[in-house]
Amino acid sequence: MSNPHEYAAAQADRFREQLKTLIRIPSVSTLPERQAETRQAAEWLADDLKQAGFETVEVLPTAGHPVVYAEWLGAGSAAPTVLVYGHYDVQPAVREDGWDSDPFEPVERDGFLYARGSSDDKGQMFAQVKAAEALLQTSQPRVNLKFLIEGEEEIGSPHLGAFVKANRERLMADVCVISDTGMRTSEQPVIAYSTRGLMYLEVEVTGPKQDLHSGGYGGIVHNPAQALAEIVAQLHDADGSIAVPGFYDEVLPLSQHERDELKKSAMPDSFWQEATGVPAFWGEADYALHERIGGRPTLEINGMVSGFYGAGSKTVLPAKALAKMSCRLVANQQPRVIFEKVKAHILNLAPPTIRVEVRLLAEGDPALMDIQSPVMQAAIRAYEQGWGRRPVFERGGGTLPILADFQRELNGLPIILMGFGLNSDGAHGPNERFSLEMFHKGIDTAIYFLEAVGG
Amino acid sequence: MSNPHEYAAAQADRFREQLKTLIRIPSVSTLPERQAETRQAAEWLADDLKQAGFETVEVLPTAGHPVVYAEWLGAGSAAPTVLVYGHYDVQPAVREDGWDSDPFEPVERDGFLYARGSSDDKGQMFAQVKAAEALLQTSQPRVNLKFLIEGEEEIGSPHLGAFVKANRERLMADVCVISDTGMRTSEQPVIAYSTRGLMYLEVEVTGPKQDLHSGGYGGIVHNPAQALAEIVAQLHDADGSIAVPGFYDEVLPLSQHERDELKKSAMPDSFWQEATGVPAFWGEADYALHERIGGRPTLEINGMVSGFYGAGSKTVLPAKALAKMSCRLVANQQPRVIFEKVKAHILNLAPPTIRVEVRLLAEGDPALMDIQSPVMQAAIRAYEQGWGRRPVFERGGGTLPILADFQRELNGLPIILMGFGLNSDGAHGPNERFSLEMFHKGIDTAIYFLEAVGG
Repeated sequence: MSNPHEYAAAQADRFREQLKTLIRIPSVSTLPERQAETRQAAEWLADDLKQAGFETVEVLPTAGHPVVYAEWLGAGSAAPTVLVYGHYDVQPAVREDGWDSDPFEPVERDGFLYARGSSDDKGQMFAQVKAAEALLQTSQPRVNLKFLIEGEEEIGSPHLGAFVKANRERLMADVCVISDTGMRTSEQPVIAYSTRGLMYLEVEVTGPKQDLHSGGYGGIVHNPAQALAEIVAQLHDADGSIAVPGFYDEVLPLSQHERDELKKSAMPDSFWQEATGVPAFWGEADYALHERIGGRPTLEINGMVSGFYGAGSKTVLPAKALAKMSCRLVANQQPRVIFEKVKAHILNLAPPTIRVEVRLLAEGDPALMDIQSPVMQAAIRAYEQGWGRRPVFERGGGTLPILADFQRELNGLPIILMGFGLNSDGAHGPNERFSLEMFHKGIDTAIYFLEAVGG
Repeated sequence: MSNPHEYAAAQADRFREQLKTLIRIPSVSTLPERQAETRQAAEWLADDLKQAGFETVEVLPTAGHPVVYAEWLGAGSAAPTVLVYGHYDVQPAVREDGWDSDPFEPVERDGFLYARGSSDDKGQMFAQVKAAEALLQTSQPRVNLKFLIEGEEEIGSPHLGAFVKANRERLMADVCVISDTGMRTSEQPVIAYSTRGLMYLEVEVTGPKQDLHSGGYGGIVHNPAQALAEIVAQLHDADGSIAVPGFYDEVLPLSQHERDELKKSAMPDSFWQEATGVPAFWGEADYALHERIGGRPTLEINGMVSGFYGAGSKTVLPAKALAKMSCRLVANQQPRVIFEKVKAHILNLAPPTIRVEVRLLAEGDPALMDIQSPVMQAAIRAYEQGWGRRPVFERGGGTLPILADFQRELNGLPIILMGFGLNSDGAHGPNERFSLEMFHKGIDTAIYFLEAVGG
């Protein structure tokens, strides 16, 4: 048998049973009592990669759970190299959370496989593994393959950045593929080609040296909660844009081509209305809703606290007030630069009647892939062949710091988010599931992609 | 012996020992396990009032702890009647709170009596009882006397309003005297002739139907925390005045005479600086600090809460935001009228992108006594005689709803806050104390006042 697609079709039942075996290993990375099982999943996966035909397979230590690394470089140094990233760890799950069946005993029902990790990310990652196997078992691939499967994605990948930095020569590739995202429907494939960056800070306003009696002191002290509100209210202009001077200076504008492409994937306003339930939308009027989410930066208040907020009334004049806020950033904004601009603006707004501190809490770079690049064209062809339909493009609103980690360490390589999940899979929740149709279409599409990159 | 002052001097030691006996009864109104002792204090006091010479003494039931009521109407219906209000219940206290001695075993040290309730209010209230005794035992008083001593002041007087309403004919008087406040120094007597009212509300802003992921939805939804801040920021003008239309309409302005009198009791800015520790004062520039506190209304943010405010970062777009806020009111502002104005302003500020609810939580009327009235002149004379010094006047910043209750039910009778405590007595805290000099000067001053009212 020389055709990888025929191989994948013939092996479909075995692939499915193998996935169930992997799912049965409860590799919950956040639970110390699951450390042995998490390692067991890594070793099971390493064995499977060896049997799939990889030349070198290693379970490499990190300061936390190990990384599974496999490579096949038989295409030669002149051929392109594909780096596949995924993760073998999963979120916690217990039956009592609302599962209809044991979360670690996969059940097939109505075309879905129900289990923790079935979609996120064992199922999606395993589709890439099986695509590589199909290629390696049936042909002499014209691409080199590198697989990096980590065990700490569900706890924020605390050691992945250091691992990539320490192994940059070895991981160097021409394109990175990640199957760890969802599509809205199984019919229309979508490629997310950007993620937003993040800059998270907190603002603390202090006034009196301790909480005061509002009767005894009200009228002579600038109330810190009021002062914080006055600052927060000056972070946006009336048109919904961000009032921080220079905030938009580095923003790479949406091109007309992108806007045209994005329109093809745009959900109708009724979708967003249903999802949010807001009485009316808000934001930059010059941009469509989907453009505001993926293509524009934001400044969001994530939380505020001051004084008394329990039931009933307490006549306190609070000593301080705190706000958590964060910016979602787009290319080419840099979190540190934005932090300094927001901080300067806030300090500039602060009146002499209070004291203000601004502290940076977290940061992550935005990522943007060129939708007209050759590898993106390869991905488009792969979806057309695997799905029978041309994919549409979207910009993701969230932040995947690993994308920026990979790009920073690996010469800015392009990354294809080749998600085979569905948004309705219920990742992280009870009754997580994975469409078996998506699993098998995903294997096919991944094979087509590797073939297309090979030329 | 026909002179009440000589009587009081001769009985000083007995008065003091009687006060200690009353203090030893732990009448902690908030503790169910002290219900018997609370009642015991009421009965002890009733016995003492009988022995003092009152014609009628009753321990009257309420829905909570009983009221002690005593009257002597021997001056005849043409003579003026003085109603004395006080309370026999106390705050909780245990040695472990930081007391140097048993809180319910009074100890004399350096001219002070240390014990729970020594100042608030057993000591101050008992000075009035002993003044009445001195008058009744030595003369035919030219004033009728009514004493109303409640047992629930420390839990907010939940049943006093109903009691006063139900007994309004019986309680009718020409002036009410309350000894339950403090002076700054023992040398300079101060009469607080007003208290501020209170209107307490909460504002809830809701946006999306549940907390959203700030990456998935940030940019199209009006953030409720931001929207709340935008509303709060529009409640004051830049000059520190309140921006609610019509807010000041009913405010009775400070007269020049009052401003002159208040200047005599005003503490220097350094006092307020020390007490608050703020980097700079804030508020209505046209009014001195003490005028802003006592003579002007405020709108204070008592608390705010929204979204995530713990350690670290969580990229939530919160579904709602809540602010607690309250106005301190001055004569002739009415809490309900002010609530409607503030509510209307807030709803008017609310944009169509969010929903806002405004809820009234508490209210209390302001009280203002005429410092030029005949009874106030009697109080001034009494202090001059008892203290050897003319009292100064101040406006209190806090709220005493019972004042408005008395005035509303009892034909707007004038109320004299004849406090014999010191601000440094530590009421409600550990090592509460009462100056024995203030106790005896207080008895004398109370006698002079009853004599002055009698003409």
